[in-house]
Amino acid sequence: MTDALDVFVSAHSFREKDLRDKTVVMIDVLRASSTMVTALHHGAKGVIPVGNMDEAGKISRNLDSESFLMSGEKNGVKIDGYDLTNSPLEHAADVVTGKTVILNTTNGTKAIDRADHADKILVGSFLNLDAVVKHLQDEKNEIVLVCAGWRGRLSFEDLLCAGNIIYELCSGNLSNTAADGAKVAFGLYEKFADDIENSIMSSNYAERLEGIVSKDDISYCCQRNELQNLPALNKGIITSLDDTAN
Amino acid sequence: MTDALDVFVSAHSFREKDLRDKTVVMIDVLRASSTMVTALHHGAKGVIPVGNMDEAGKISRNLDSESFLMSGEKNGVKIDGYDLTNSPLEHAADVVTGKTVILNTTNGTKAIDRADHADKILVGSFLNLDAVVKHLQDEKNEIVLVCAGWRGRLSFEDLLCAGNIIYELCSGNLSNTAADGAKVAFGLYEKFADDIENSIMSSNYAERLEGIVSKDDISYCCQRNELQNLPALNKGIITSLDDTAN
Repeated sequence: MTDALDVFVSAHSFREKDLRDKTVVMIDVLRASSTMVTALHHGAKGVIPVGNMDEAGKISRNLDSESFLMSGEKNGVKIDGYDLTNSPLEHAADVVTGKTVILNTTNGTKAIDRADHADKILVGSFLNLDAVVKHLQDEKNEIVLVCAGWRGRLSFEDLLCAGNIIYELCSGNLSNTAADGAKVAFGLYEKFADDIENSIMSSNYAERLEGIVSKDDISYCCQRNELQNLPALNKGIITSLDDTAN
Repeated sequence: MTDALDVFVSAHSFREKDLRDKTVVMIDVLRASSTMVTALHHGAKGVIPVGNMDEAGKISRNLDSESFLMSGEKNGVKIDGYDLTNSPLEHAADVVTGKTVILNTTNGTKAIDRADHADKILVGSFLNLDAVVKHLQDEKNEIVLVCAGWRGRLSFEDLLCAGNIIYELCSGNLSNTAADGAKVAFGLYEKFADDIENSIMSSNYAERLEGIVSKDDISYCCQRNELQNLPALNKGIITSLDDTAN
């Protein structure tokens, strides 16, 4: 099945039509994907991904003020008037239950926007890796893992997570005829499988945001299979696929 | 020195300003880089990379008809009225000596065009790997290896070549603080170092063009350090850096 699977390393590294009718897994380990999975696990009604503050403002004006939370940060600091930063750890049950979270996330939103022609858009992270793999094992569509990356570049942690998904899907034996992107992600995972957290701690993301994003946040996002839900996009809102819909 | 080095996996995976004042090595193993290195080694006066037939036509109209050759193909077949395909093996000494080669190459040209703000643009391949590494060892600028990729996607063979260059530059010990792109390329090279030709033979490129591009062509492009010249772009024309200019 991994022959019908490709990996794109950033939101810029494909043509929109390359995703047509496919099942897309959007991966933004640090931290959009991890925060979405966490918020939904803890009872948020939905997550609306937005690319900037303007868009967040427009959406929030159409919602009852009690019904939503705004999450976002600029240079690692909570945006004035927002409820939360992008930290998954802030999206705890007592905060998010029953609320719609409007999540500001540049690279993650870009990846989702460019996946407009896809048949299905799912959200993957280390936290819900098993749920992603289980769903993909029965998938009939071609699969594309879209790493959010950073400003068009690849991000180590996203590609590593894509590699881990592929590794599980092919039980550690990737076909020689797999796509180039799948081979690269798989190889990266093989190399760093025993050292996920440390290797991510020395990634460009961690370095860029040292002293701004907490190590607890990063450690949390590196945990595998802590959460069992599988977020999916439906008319602009991300909610968990329930078991019957799987 | 590999801390001041990044890798971009395709011509789309960076912002043009990310290359400002840097030294860029453009890598399009199959086959633009390999053909440029080969043509110059065999005495071509220069190579002019163009992105399409129109551009090739415009440039050729300003040149004496005896002074140039047109190289290009569409779906693996030589373009009507052209002298050569993109095969490096056709760019032999008795054909190219003293001529300017106008080379049609979509992905390679895109990478070069987008590197307009760079301080220096060099051309790298397995064929001239040593020449690239030697030059970069003394480089004062920050270095970016730009893989041409294919339609925005990464290409296995380009990233593998980037990884090989990095491996040589850091003598097999990549710093923990290297850029994400450098880590990915380095890891890929470590995995496939002993199997370069076979792994490239099963890449997407080889698969896409099976029966069109000869295996001899691919084998040739996988040979390391066969040629010692280092092509560099100067006012739109690629020529070999001579030893004194190094």
